[in-house]
Amino acid sequence: MTTNVSALAAPAANAPLERTTVPRRPVGEHDVLIEITHAGICHSDIHQARNGWGEGIFPMVPGHEIAGIVTEVGPGVTRHQVGDRVGVGCFVDSCRTCAYCEQGLEQYCVTGGTGTYNALDKNGEPTYGGYSTHIVVDENYTLRIPEGIPLDAAAPLLCAGITLYSPLAHWQAGPGKKVAIVGLGGLGHMGVKIAHALGAEVTVLSQSLKKREDALKLGADHYYATNDPETFTALRDSFDLVISTVSAPLDFDAYLSLVKTDGALVNVGAPEEPVKVGLFSLIGGRKTLAGSMIGGIKETQEMLDFCAAHGLGAEIELITADQVNEAYERVIASDVRYRFVIDASTI
Amino acid sequence: MTTNVSALAAPAANAPLERTTVPRRPVGEHDVLIEITHAGICHSDIHQARNGWGEGIFPMVPGHEIAGIVTEVGPGVTRHQVGDRVGVGCFVDSCRTCAYCEQGLEQYCVTGGTGTYNALDKNGEPTYGGYSTHIVVDENYTLRIPEGIPLDAAAPLLCAGITLYSPLAHWQAGPGKKVAIVGLGGLGHMGVKIAHALGAEVTVLSQSLKKREDALKLGADHYYATNDPETFTALRDSFDLVISTVSAPLDFDAYLSLVKTDGALVNVGAPEEPVKVGLFSLIGGRKTLAGSMIGGIKETQEMLDFCAAHGLGAEIELITADQVNEAYERVIASDVRYRFVIDASTI
Repeated sequence: MTTNVSALAAPAANAPLERTTVPRRPVGEHDVLIEITHAGICHSDIHQARNGWGEGIFPMVPGHEIAGIVTEVGPGVTRHQVGDRVGVGCFVDSCRTCAYCEQGLEQYCVTGGTGTYNALDKNGEPTYGGYSTHIVVDENYTLRIPEGIPLDAAAPLLCAGITLYSPLAHWQAGPGKKVAIVGLGGLGHMGVKIAHALGAEVTVLSQSLKKREDALKLGADHYYATNDPETFTALRDSFDLVISTVSAPLDFDAYLSLVKTDGALVNVGAPEEPVKVGLFSLIGGRKTLAGSMIGGIKETQEMLDFCAAHGLGAEIELITADQVNEAYERVIASDVRYRFVIDASTI
Repeated sequence: MTTNVSALAAPAANAPLERTTVPRRPVGEHDVLIEITHAGICHSDIHQARNGWGEGIFPMVPGHEIAGIVTEVGPGVTRHQVGDRVGVGCFVDSCRTCAYCEQGLEQYCVTGGTGTYNALDKNGEPTYGGYSTHIVVDENYTLRIPEGIPLDAAAPLLCAGITLYSPLAHWQAGPGKKVAIVGLGGLGHMGVKIAHALGAEVTVLSQSLKKREDALKLGADHYYATNDPETFTALRDSFDLVISTVSAPLDFDAYLSLVKTDGALVNVGAPEEPVKVGLFSLIGGRKTLAGSMIGGIKETQEMLDFCAAHGLGAEIELITADQVNEAYERVIASDVRYRFVIDASTI
């Protein structure tokens, strides 16, 4: 039976979020019903709620950094039981048959998969995200949150954590490798923590010196301000891997000059407009300009287990439902250290 | 004793090439004197002779696709003896101590190395290239040309061959891999031959259908015209590796759409101006936009041995010294199948 549950929704593009109810489907054969305890606020929630990417489905309940407790399982469920601590990330389904799904790369499913919100599921029904009290999700798209991570600090791992873990793992950050993280926000601060835990030598490249102390506490070995042109001279040919978390258009040639031969500049944030890059910046050192997008289910579980083993969670500011619109403004002003998380019991 | 040898030189930027003599240094401890038999004409010879990249050193003797016979060796030479068939590529020296030189990646030497022409050597003397009867080169920067390859067909391997072999090897073209070569010129035709010999499934992407028959003869499995928009629909998400040999600014987002998740678009040709690319074209499939530049000495030898083992050489039009200026015009008009090679005995 479809159930209506409480949620925070943007009724239309650019309208403030407000309390409402949205339908959740009956718990199917392989579904789990999750009582959401926490939902992180990702910058992309704001983009979508404000229709920055167009084609938004309204009313929209954002939220793809979801932590909670299983309260009901379908008869065919084998991966979870009632009482399990679980998470849901950016997608809740995919085609399951394409070459990428078969490799555990569901995030690159040829169908695009089914977003946790602002998408239509296989029955053509809109999906509603984590700013809500409950959600019904197929067990195959639900993650186990290990005991070692508090649920509030775990929620942002489902997007911010995996978004950084995946490229760090793929491009083999680890002992002996020099890694730079560009931008110290919700994504960047997880990049520093994870890269440090992986054993890499970590440098933060942030606009100003403002966040230096924080960065070093999070595990950075070095910190440079990118508003100082000296930085680009001093760090020339220094890094095996640079991960940019910023969505402003960078001077890509300048950042590529920091990358060693055979190194990579990987973008997980990105401006919506095309960027300019001189191909000689790549050719002159067999360098890679790449992108990476969240991670697959298997890798997301691996990330959560890794974070638990290393005592990692997100740095958060816990807020109530009433503070969400204000939090959105603060995210836009980069005034958060480092992730807002909604206490879902207040929704 | 410095010796003057015959050469073809551009006396000034944009001036036609003419016969002259240039000095060759005495054969030093580790040098070999090579009697040049053949010199390939690379598009970049024309760029440089016409000062397209600025800072040209004139008079300029182009030529970095050199094949010939050793006629004298220095007392300390161990790698070569008189009578050896040898080649010289794009550089004749490097610092030998940086991390890249130590890895055999001399092409990425932090000092930039010493170009075969249009450069200054360690003594500050200009280097003169292969459009000449003789050259003196350090044995460590001289390649062995196996008996299996005629010297005229071998000369272009020293630049065009290694420029394609290196990225094909680095990005692991081989059985089960789908490789596209963009542009079927001097570089591209070697890409087709080598990728095919490596066991990859090879597609040529050329502007029109004009060269289709040639491409299939060279070893391509498929051929598509890029002036047909249908090509980009039909080949979406098809290739593990796309190598672009063209220097025109491509629609990089369109070409990246042809690359599979985790695949790479590697540029060995490149426009001089920055190009535009949408980072979502990379992010949406963990794709790589990369560049690659010739190859190191060890890998160049590996390429020559590979070509000999597979009976590969360049497709050439052999010309005399008198035809060089006309050949330059034909290269610019893309009217060559697929490389002009100068018979150095006519210089």
